[in-house]
Amino acid sequence: MTSTSDEGWRKVPEAELTRRIKLVQASMEKHGVNALIVTAQDNFIYLTGFDSPTWVNLARPRYCVVPARGELILVVPTTNLSAVERMTWVRDIRSWVSPNPVDDGLSLVADAVCATTEPEGVVGMEIGPQSRLGLPATDFMALRERLLPRRLADADGLLREVRKVKSPFEVAAIRAAAEATSRAFAGLAGQSLTDRDECSIVQDFRALLFAEGVEDAPYLVAESGFGGYPSLQMAPSSRRLSDGTVLSIDAGCRVGGYFCDFNRNFCVGRIPDISRRADDLLWQATQAGIEAARPGSTAADVWYAVAQVLDRGLEAIGGRRTRSGRMGHGIGLRLTEPPSVHPEDTTVLVPGMVITVEPSAEFEIVTPAGTAKRMLIHEENLVVTYDGPQLLSMRAPRGLPAAR
Amino acid sequence: MTSTSDEGWRKVPEAELTRRIKLVQASMEKHGVNALIVTAQDNFIYLTGFDSPTWVNLARPRYCVVPARGELILVVPTTNLSAVERMTWVRDIRSWVSPNPVDDGLSLVADAVCATTEPEGVVGMEIGPQSRLGLPATDFMALRERLLPRRLADADGLLREVRKVKSPFEVAAIRAAAEATSRAFAGLAGQSLTDRDECSIVQDFRALLFAEGVEDAPYLVAESGFGGYPSLQMAPSSRRLSDGTVLSIDAGCRVGGYFCDFNRNFCVGRIPDISRRADDLLWQATQAGIEAARPGSTAADVWYAVAQVLDRGLEAIGGRRTRSGRMGHGIGLRLTEPPSVHPEDTTVLVPGMVITVEPSAEFEIVTPAGTAKRMLIHEENLVVTYDGPQLLSMRAPRGLPAAR
Repeated sequence: MTSTSDEGWRKVPEAELTRRIKLVQASMEKHGVNALIVTAQDNFIYLTGFDSPTWVNLARPRYCVVPARGELILVVPTTNLSAVERMTWVRDIRSWVSPNPVDDGLSLVADAVCATTEPEGVVGMEIGPQSRLGLPATDFMALRERLLPRRLADADGLLREVRKVKSPFEVAAIRAAAEATSRAFAGLAGQSLTDRDECSIVQDFRALLFAEGVEDAPYLVAESGFGGYPSLQMAPSSRRLSDGTVLSIDAGCRVGGYFCDFNRNFCVGRIPDISRRADDLLWQATQAGIEAARPGSTAADVWYAVAQVLDRGLEAIGGRRTRSGRMGHGIGLRLTEPPSVHPEDTTVLVPGMVITVEPSAEFEIVTPAGTAKRMLIHEENLVVTYDGPQLLSMRAPRGLPAAR
Repeated sequence: MTSTSDEGWRKVPEAELTRRIKLVQASMEKHGVNALIVTAQDNFIYLTGFDSPTWVNLARPRYCVVPARGELILVVPTTNLSAVERMTWVRDIRSWVSPNPVDDGLSLVADAVCATTEPEGVVGMEIGPQSRLGLPATDFMALRERLLPRRLADADGLLREVRKVKSPFEVAAIRAAAEATSRAFAGLAGQSLTDRDECSIVQDFRALLFAEGVEDAPYLVAESGFGGYPSLQMAPSSRRLSDGTVLSIDAGCRVGGYFCDFNRNFCVGRIPDISRRADDLLWQATQAGIEAARPGSTAADVWYAVAQVLDRGLEAIGGRRTRSGRMGHGIGLRLTEPPSVHPEDTTVLVPGMVITVEPSAEFEIVTPAGTAKRMLIHEENLVVTYDGPQLLSMRAPRGLPAAR
């Protein structure tokens, strides 16, 4: 027993964080940005190693200021102070009693930024595509005023650019999440799913996930339907799995703050032929996408490799690609990160990038009650290495696994 | 088996949603707001009944437009379309293929708002205290430009004001979450915690939560320490519980999208006398707060009732209140909502308001390694009724429960 009770914490190593901060500061210099104000959970974790369930609580924002050179400055509510002191290596931590409707940390943040940047400087905040600010918009606009005449730039794009290539430490975390999730899926495949409902199946799956080492499962989606599912976006329902049903579970699970993101399909009884054929096409398309994810290829190359297999095969069975906007994406501290596996994303794949390959198909199916639109999705996670793609998820077996 | 596979969904009844929309439109009229653009998960659920894990995915925003009169307009990504059609009663649903870096739904939203409001109108978006926008700030600023000359107002405060008083449907959901969580805590109290680590205990607790009917547990905080904990903000660590340890678990768990939020303390072996005395004071202070939560009292009255008991007793043992900013708060679709149990919050409590009473104390303790700062927290959830406060959480027993 010691007076500090931090023995149990898994801190991100200081050398790893120092390396990240240097990469970010180099990118800031390149883009002419003199300071960043970071408020989103994922970017905050990336820079400080500090994660906590308290991001669910919107009452109390947290700020990380990245100066052009030198060490981070954290501005956190007093309630977070002890945890931030124990979980990070940051020495300059400032705090205020929050919630404070008049000044919820803004003065402390403005002071920190103004003391480290010239009035003609540029300050980055998370405002670009696919970003979310971790503070109220009114506070954002007030902060922006207080920083004048400093100009505003997007910090999120800059951080995502740096974060696109993962360190071995980061790949290990995603791999741990993907492997634990794969083992949980394998455990589920050994169970009888017939006549059970989605909720109870996902409850068992969740127990398996945590038993296998997943630390958090914020994205657990499950849908089922005769011969396929209508979409793959919802929490599980009380729908029962009967003959001909395909159930899909899509799992965004975290270890050390890092996400894996892939689904598995399960079927009960006799599945319509068109569903079996579409499923096999998706397996082949995924395989093509995985094999295309080599260093030097682009995200678009992966898309074309997947689309070529899909389009040819789906035409033969009267199906088509879904309009999902892309067929894969980066993963990391966010469930979806750049690049997008999209025909217009020309990001060159380099070793350390971690992406999903995620083709989906839709088709009409004849049910006892009439025709219905159905879809099927496959997804795998991989890291690009010098030797080519390396799977992080355990490759789905070819052919829909029948539940016992 | 039907061609629509929506039998398993639990939809919020149309009458409940119609009532909510009318309340919001009445408040809009009162405040001179002609349309709302809602993007945050909790407000979106409140208005439409649509919840989904897809809010974790920042790539694809969702918009709910509330006109001054008449029905909602939803603008959602094509990937959400089928789920939104099945889960809501909304008839006017528009969609686009997202992510689209050039126009991620903005044109559709601007068109919907401009068609239903005059140029001199006022449009509300979620920008006020404790709000978060569900779209990138750059898109928010672009949307604001496109709506000109319409003026911008805060939609979040308006919605929270309406949401402050819960319907019986809403209270039932919070009660279900609180009762399931209470049963899970009771199950944990029956287990031996000695020499186990926080992670494994929370893993068991999570399994109990889902077995008892909790649908989602996005806020599971656990900390432990000799005679108290250093803070109560973190995910569980691998710290082992030894003689003299107090473990606290704070649980924000959801049913039907609605949160409960309360903690329980457990102890192992012989606890220092100061900790036992502080714990008993907190129990008494919580009791005083619960009893003060009568219709007609203010949130500040509850604060004073709690503070009076605490301050008197803590002085005697050399402790003090923590600087947490408040001693309780509203709960609902957000983990923390107005009112704040704070000396300056003069919100009058009315039947249907659901709040937490959450006193905390800090004190110095002598450990084998020297003196250390420790805290203890108690928390209960209640609904204000015409007959007075009614507990939703099962009242914590007086006295720290010793683990076996």
